Amino acid sequence: MARVYNFSAGPGVLPEEVLQEAAWEMLDYHGTGMSVMEMSHRSEAFQEIIDRAETDIRDLMGIPDNYKVLFLQGGASQQFAMIPMNLMKNGVADYVITGQWAKKAYEEAKKFGKANAIASSADKMFSYIPDCGDLPISQQADYVYICENNTIYGTKFWQLPNTKGKTLVSDVSSCFLSEPVDVNKYGILYGGVQKNIGPAGVTIVIIREDLIREDLSETVPTMLRYATHAAHGSMYNTPPAYGIYICGKVFQWLKKLGGLEAIKVRNEAKAKVLYDFLDRSTLFRGTVAKKDRSVMNVPFITGDKVLDARFIEEAAAAGFVNLRGHRTVGGMRASLYNAMPVEGVEKLAAFMEAFEARNR
Amino acid sequence: MARVYNFSAGPGVLPEEVLQEAAWEMLDYHGTGMSVMEMSHRSEAFQEIIDRAETDIRDLMGIPDNYKVLFLQGGASQQFAMIPMNLMKNGVADYVITGQWAKKAYEEAKKFGKANAIASSADKMFSYIPDCGDLPISQQADYVYICENNTIYGTKFWQLPNTKGKTLVSDVSSCFLSEPVDVNKYGILYGGVQKNIGPAGVTIVIIREDLIREDLSETVPTMLRYATHAAHGSMYNTPPAYGIYICGKVFQWLKKLGGLEAIKVRNEAKAKVLYDFLDRSTLFRGTVAKKDRSVMNVPFITGDKVLDARFIEEAAAAGFVNLRGHRTVGGMRASLYNAMPVEGVEKLAAFMEAFEARNR
Repeated sequence: MARVYNFSAGPGVLPEEVLQEAAWEMLDYHGTGMSVMEMSHRSEAFQEIIDRAETDIRDLMGIPDNYKVLFLQGGASQQFAMIPMNLMKNGVADYVITGQWAKKAYEEAKKFGKANAIASSADKMFSYIPDCGDLPISQQADYVYICENNTIYGTKFWQLPNTKGKTLVSDVSSCFLSEPVDVNKYGILYGGVQKNIGPAGVTIVIIREDLIREDLSETVPTMLRYATHAAHGSMYNTPPAYGIYICGKVFQWLKKLGGLEAIKVRNEAKAKVLYDFLDRSTLFRGTVAKKDRSVMNVPFITGDKVLDARFIEEAAAAGFVNLRGHRTVGGMRASLYNAMPVEGVEKLAAFMEAFEARNR
Repeated sequence: MARVYNFSAGPGVLPEEVLQEAAWEMLDYHGTGMSVMEMSHRSEAFQEIIDRAETDIRDLMGIPDNYKVLFLQGGASQQFAMIPMNLMKNGVADYVITGQWAKKAYEEAKKFGKANAIASSADKMFSYIPDCGDLPISQQADYVYICENNTIYGTKFWQLPNTKGKTLVSDVSSCFLSEPVDVNKYGILYGGVQKNIGPAGVTIVIIREDLIREDLSETVPTMLRYATHAAHGSMYNTPPAYGIYICGKVFQWLKKLGGLEAIKVRNEAKAKVLYDFLDRSTLFRGTVAKKDRSVMNVPFITGDKVLDARFIEEAAAAGFVNLRGHRTVGGMRASLYNAMPVEGVEKLAAFMEAFEARNR
């Protein structure tokens, strides 16, 4: 079996030892005589799995007691509706538009109230993060929304916006658990797990308890109410149990590595290898303002579409796969999620250097 | 490794060879060098998986070309809202109340229009299916809704209701792919896959194309519109890819067994073993009207709660697990889904006979 270096933007690479354990446990989880896939979600064995997962993510992120951790379905796209449906009291929210996902969230919010685009980096193809030190926050804003790491464009908010006292809501899908965070700064932080944590089909929502409202309009579906899921420990109905089990294994893997401080050091070292190469290359270059570079998603180009295509093809043949940029932007993109080993990035940089030498 | 006989009502038993294959492919799916969990949903490899899954379920069920097959998230509980939100034009729908799940669907529909309970078996603890030959169907009804197999109570509609020309919507979660069906009789048939098909987190919706409307109220979330998912081949956003992959393997397993005609014969034979024993036992008895008995879920009691508890405990110790009845009804329940082998039911009946002899 030859594992490749998988630079997919998501679903993305998972730790090999997590997959190995899952394979070993597939027919018999811890002597239960069944797979986690076959397990009643009301069983003791599964309750232990979900409780342990919650405890571990709370430990890793230092989640305060006045926040709930919810394991939901539907992806970030479903959150785009749940957030305004649950949080809009005044019917107003402010959005910072730093890419396609922030824009989609903003467009969806318009269905439920007045959504304002208070800043945007659309003018330069979302290649930077706008200055968010003094934003025109709406007086009535129920929350300020950001997409903290922009998977497609490779930008990251290294400083959170000054929300002037308003609740901050953040989509952290592509930087989830990549570094320590101060959860207290957020009202909600959430993400699909399929980039940095587990298999597609689980969305983790970390929400401050005072934002979980019971007094919503009758027409909000039961399943789209945070209160429903919070009241039932994420088991109002059958949860995506196998996905939660894999997430739990990834939390354990992170703890063994030393937690979020340790993974941050490793992630920064990996990104540095690639950015340093891009900065000295005469063929390849990064597309993002240096101060706003993501350590998770690194887009780059040669400036020549034919050469880009040849690079992607030759890289794939050499075992560096999923380097094609998002279908809407082209070029290349290397996603360096937690589970990408350092040597994967080192070897990619060496391969790029050799490609450059061949194509000078 | 000792596999148990798992009679869980769901998530439930899956075919051992499916799990074995999944374990083998966990680190390297068909030479891609990665797990299906790590695979971009936009990759060729995953497109093949989802296309093959759709083709196979279409083959198995004989799904006509004017029906779409959607792989969604959120479980049946989310469908309880999606159905009225998408199908109510006149704002009226009729519900047949045959258990908790039908009742939940009915309660949810009230959020979006006028839902009528046109028949119910609540008077006898849902132990039968009401006569649906001449129901008081509402003239304005946009659809008539049933839960076709009632997991908790062990009843099954062996004849579909006379809807007097109205669209039939059916929750088939606990009888999905257990026998051949005539899809043409339905507007929508749908179910969570975690009982008979795959891991929790995938909901399959089979919907006649004319019911997929674009002209919904602006306030219906993008993710709750069938049109969104139909237009994007179930990949408007990242689908629950690993779950779909396992479902696909179960479809293949069913085809190898001979399809739905063959599984129906096997399922009826399994159920007969248990019902025949219940009918001749002087200790145990079934709780459902004979004509309405499900072949998937078989509830039974001794009439003595202490004895019920002892039976459940001794059965579990002997490797027959998850026989406890639903927490709201008590007693016992054996779920005999497709993947439960015949010998599992034979051995259970033999164990019950021996228990009866010991407790006479």
